[in-house]
Amino acid sequence: MRCLELTQEVKKNILEDLLERSPNSYGGYEAAVSEIIGAVKDKGDEALFSYTKRFDGIELDAESVRVTPEEIEEAYTQVDEEFLAIIRKAIENIRVYHEKQKQYSWFDSTPQGTILGQKVTPLERVGVYVPGGKAAYPSSVLMNTIPAKVAGVEKIIMVTPPDKEGRVTPTTLVAAREAGADEIYKVGGAQAIAALAYGTESIPKVHKIVGPGNIYVALAKKAVYGYVSIDSIAGPSEILVLADETANPRYVAADLLSQAEHDELASAILVTTSKELAKEVEKEIEGFLQVLSRREILEKSLENYGYILIADTMEMAIDTVNEIASEHLEIVTKDPFQIMTKIKNAGAIFLGEYSSEPLGDYFAGPNHVLPTNGTAKFFSPLSVDDFIKKSSIISYSREALYPFHQDIVSFAKAEGLTAHANSIAVRFEKE
Amino acid sequence: MRCLELTQEVKKNILEDLLERSPNSYGGYEAAVSEIIGAVKDKGDEALFSYTKRFDGIELDAESVRVTPEEIEEAYTQVDEEFLAIIRKAIENIRVYHEKQKQYSWFDSTPQGTILGQKVTPLERVGVYVPGGKAAYPSSVLMNTIPAKVAGVEKIIMVTPPDKEGRVTPTTLVAAREAGADEIYKVGGAQAIAALAYGTESIPKVHKIVGPGNIYVALAKKAVYGYVSIDSIAGPSEILVLADETANPRYVAADLLSQAEHDELASAILVTTSKELAKEVEKEIEGFLQVLSRREILEKSLENYGYILIADTMEMAIDTVNEIASEHLEIVTKDPFQIMTKIKNAGAIFLGEYSSEPLGDYFAGPNHVLPTNGTAKFFSPLSVDDFIKKSSIISYSREALYPFHQDIVSFAKAEGLTAHANSIAVRFEKE
Repeated sequence: MRCLELTQEVKKNILEDLLERSPNSYGGYEAAVSEIIGAVKDKGDEALFSYTKRFDGIELDAESVRVTPEEIEEAYTQVDEEFLAIIRKAIENIRVYHEKQKQYSWFDSTPQGTILGQKVTPLERVGVYVPGGKAAYPSSVLMNTIPAKVAGVEKIIMVTPPDKEGRVTPTTLVAAREAGADEIYKVGGAQAIAALAYGTESIPKVHKIVGPGNIYVALAKKAVYGYVSIDSIAGPSEILVLADETANPRYVAADLLSQAEHDELASAILVTTSKELAKEVEKEIEGFLQVLSRREILEKSLENYGYILIADTMEMAIDTVNEIASEHLEIVTKDPFQIMTKIKNAGAIFLGEYSSEPLGDYFAGPNHVLPTNGTAKFFSPLSVDDFIKKSSIISYSREALYPFHQDIVSFAKAEGLTAHANSIAVRFEKE
Repeated sequence: MRCLELTQEVKKNILEDLLERSPNSYGGYEAAVSEIIGAVKDKGDEALFSYTKRFDGIELDAESVRVTPEEIEEAYTQVDEEFLAIIRKAIENIRVYHEKQKQYSWFDSTPQGTILGQKVTPLERVGVYVPGGKAAYPSSVLMNTIPAKVAGVEKIIMVTPPDKEGRVTPTTLVAAREAGADEIYKVGGAQAIAALAYGTESIPKVHKIVGPGNIYVALAKKAVYGYVSIDSIAGPSEILVLADETANPRYVAADLLSQAEHDELASAILVTTSKELAKEVEKEIEGFLQVLSRREILEKSLENYGYILIADTMEMAIDTVNEIASEHLEIVTKDPFQIMTKIKNAGAIFLGEYSSEPLGDYFAGPNHVLPTNGTAKFFSPLSVDDFIKKSSIISYSREALYPFHQDIVSFAKAEGLTAHANSIAVRFEKE
């Protein structure tokens, strides 16, 4: 972890470093992924099951590919009761928060006979990808499924790779059932994404695919984008803590480490106006490193993408925060809400010293699928918005159209589109 | 134009035909586009001006690349006063409609000390691509610029290719000024997209790029997606008219032709429950073809992608409408608003016999940038939503966190993330 005075030069270098982690620079797997997608598109189940045998080591057919009610019941017996209760509390919080994101159809009318509006319709079928094995996080199942459910999606189809015995992680099954997934299939990798995008004999075609995955999954999602919709391609996790001298260094250190433990590309940055705090946080991090279990990952990610930046002014600090546009931003200052007014770019903003980032990962309610790698400048957290779409509504009466019909005819003619002009003119040709 | 009885088989074949027009099947230009993007990214203005010389035949520099206030004044003298008045009326309608799309930050608090919410922030800088020459539609300038302006985007940067004398189409300049573009640069093609995505010495980097363009522009937008945001890649235009025996065949025919004139890939489809109407519409189309100026394009697009489909029941008709998910849908039946309740997928829905599609292209207010090629199943019209992004807001007091801190610690441990657990636990370690 480097401790540096924050200058324009330092800021520029860090921004460049961070961007190098972009999933846009993935390469070399495109050909393999494109072959898998083509095969599943053309041959359906046959290709899907053949890849599943090859990559997951298990032979499935049109029946055994789908998780049965019995398998889900079995999973419940393997999940701790206390943990199930926590999952249910989290689901309630996530549901309540996402309910508030719902958008409604609206229209506006005038007595002249114009009706203009926007109709909101949920997507019909959505696919949720859930990684297998160690990367199977139940919180991820909740965060990807609940917004779709709240939006009113008719069918939520989950896919997740099976183990060599054809089983799926029990917590995944339980979280999926609790969150409201409708069907679960034991497929993973690029072949699962292709199956969702194009449909096979046993897997229904969906209109949007969400959820995290390895590089094959990410590239497959990118490849089918446009034919179906996808969520954004997630990069490595990031935390930025903006703190002044009032912050508790022990809490700040713990929060930085909470993201640094994700993987070696994760980034943890403290931007502070207090040299004193910077020193204390460094010390606390050293202390925690001695006791935390994922020490190897922590040390690597801190070495690669961990920074303590000391800013001369809060203004310079805020400017850097906006430039970095971190996935998670904690504001731990004496007036966090005032500082928040100046924040333009961040996935999620945590305010005050008890608003620790993991609170948002599991429990508070807002989504933990957030824009990474500077994309908070233009992307938003996963939300109910991702599972609806809109149609414009336009209705004019004869009386509403009449006063303007010549204007529209002239506009169309000015653009050289005479059949456009004709379609308006023909309605008044007898006058 | 083929007139067919609507069966499941016919529906399936038409859907496959239409999808073939997808921009996803573009190919062969990727290498050229990727080279251009790489050069502009690495060499900035030098590469940008070199491509502009090569493709647009004009030598520009850091000064002459930007449109001056004098050039804009000059453009006003070349635009008809009456046309300017129409543009201003259209702008007012477009502005009023898009104002209603604005979304606001919100929060929800409990007396226990939880604050959860969502902060809405406009994108800071947006690029609008405007094609040059004959494809320079002033309506397109308005539809791409006004939603950004309404959203509160700080800087709207327009790019458009110059002619060989280094001039830009006057109506483009006037429409740009009237709609509120802040800066206009005389560059086009993939090199302009690259300049907007990465910035050069003379062109500012933006966070999102919108606007239509040729295949180079479309591929360049696709290539920079993820590094910046883009609008969707537009396919050929489409109209679908859903009509019963109450429809006026002359109006229906004129409206079908209004979209068929766009280009040879445009699609115009009538789905009707009335054989009588089908016949009359065919006759009217024949009549119009004799008099309309873009006859060659009209005949080609009708031959390729024009259909009259006769459905046994309104239910079957509506099902087909939802499967095709047309860019533009006109409902001309005795109860269009009731039919509308059953429509799931369409870019814009025009209701009643005076709601002709070109009304929406130029004048009524809703955006004319709409999802094409079946993507209305998951994409929405261009809107103010495209020019904002959201940040989650999370703040818990000590009192709010305390009752749940053990739950969160347990959840984090269940996922094997001990530093996550630590960041919650450390706040209560003294108890």
